[in-house]
Amino acid sequence: MKLFNYFRSSASFRVRIALHYKGLDYDYIPVHLVRGEHHDPAYTGRVGDALVPTLVTDDGVALSQSMAIIEYLDETHPAPPLLPAEPLARAQVRALAQMVACEMHPLNNLRVLKYLVHELKVDEAGKNAWYIHWARSGLEAFEHQLVLLAQQRATQGLAPSVYCWGDAPTLADCCLVPHVFNCQRFNVNLEGVPLTMAAFAACMALPAFQQAQPSACPDHQP
Amino acid sequence: MKLFNYFRSSASFRVRIALHYKGLDYDYIPVHLVRGEHHDPAYTGRVGDALVPTLVTDDGVALSQSMAIIEYLDETHPAPPLLPAEPLARAQVRALAQMVACEMHPLNNLRVLKYLVHELKVDEAGKNAWYIHWARSGLEAFEHQLVLLAQQRATQGLAPSVYCWGDAPTLADCCLVPHVFNCQRFNVNLEGVPLTMAAFAACMALPAFQQAQPSACPDHQP
Repeated sequence: MKLFNYFRSSASFRVRIALHYKGLDYDYIPVHLVRGEHHDPAYTGRVGDALVPTLVTDDGVALSQSMAIIEYLDETHPAPPLLPAEPLARAQVRALAQMVACEMHPLNNLRVLKYLVHELKVDEAGKNAWYIHWARSGLEAFEHQLVLLAQQRATQGLAPSVYCWGDAPTLADCCLVPHVFNCQRFNVNLEGVPLTMAAFAACMALPAFQQAQPSACPDHQP
Repeated sequence: MKLFNYFRSSASFRVRIALHYKGLDYDYIPVHLVRGEHHDPAYTGRVGDALVPTLVTDDGVALSQSMAIIEYLDETHPAPPLLPAEPLARAQVRALAQMVACEMHPLNNLRVLKYLVHELKVDEAGKNAWYIHWARSGLEAFEHQLVLLAQQRATQGLAPSVYCWGDAPTLADCCLVPHVFNCQRFNVNLEGVPLTMAAFAACMALPAFQQAQPSACPDHQP
């Protein structure tokens, strides 16, 4: 498999976590977003949305959208799983993942920040306030959701979760960890969201998450 | 089942389509977003993100995030399916759905438009330009993806898709149709995306999509 990706792209980071967690080999093909390499016809000829990541299977099929790629990896390489077995639990994990992927990340990616600056003439302070607003409010909602899930577990007599959901990493952790990295980079306040940060810390103690992080990527730049 | 939702919310509309398509009964509980009813503690006590829709199961469990809810419905009520059986095909359908749910819709929902107006002091013309930019560029990417998938089908000797993917509606159609409704409401140009609009037309010929549309909702207001 080949992964077209960018060290700093959080959607790319999600897929790298899944690949490392499942112990799958892949070729790392860097696509430099800031240099606009994702608009190169050689790239856009493969994927409709000209975004990273793209996973190209051994049969040469290009798959886009990070969560769709991770579900594909989970269906084709089920062990270790990134989703629980039971439908209700799967829905809870997917909802956590989608809170990041559909509510937080889309507002703060590079093309949106560029639109703010170039089209809406938002200054640096306004851009940073935008970033922090969506990143932090999203984190608070995520924490609230973890609290609700913890209450459910308690009433069922289950032990507290170690990761976002349960005692092993899931798709939710694949999405959360890159978001926390982004928060750290933009100095978003990470206080007051203890369940979220405990899940993050548990993930970062695992080799897969360490190996997938931006600083471990071949195209990493400080 | 109870669906907490709002007639004009496109994430709510996605789930209504899935429920009607599968022939599942549900209680429609309106949550008036413009009046801020989603911030009521009785609502936020159930779901972390204070967004619609929320599906409450017959066991009283609250599920959030429209795509997670639809996957749950598909796993618990498999017929008729909203995802194909084969992993690669499932990834293609999910990626189309996520192009809408992760790239287009998050930028144009009510809370983001409010931030533009109230925090960034963007005027009406600027707000509309923002809306149209993301809605239209997203549609063009979606069309490009449908073209790439059509080329794949042709090389495999398969008939052209009737809907977004294949000859039956999928999760991708559940996401596309509400997006096209939004485009119509904001006068987004719908020319030049023929595969996309053909899939939309095929969907709207089905009773489930008609029954789920905003004008068919009990809380509908013109």
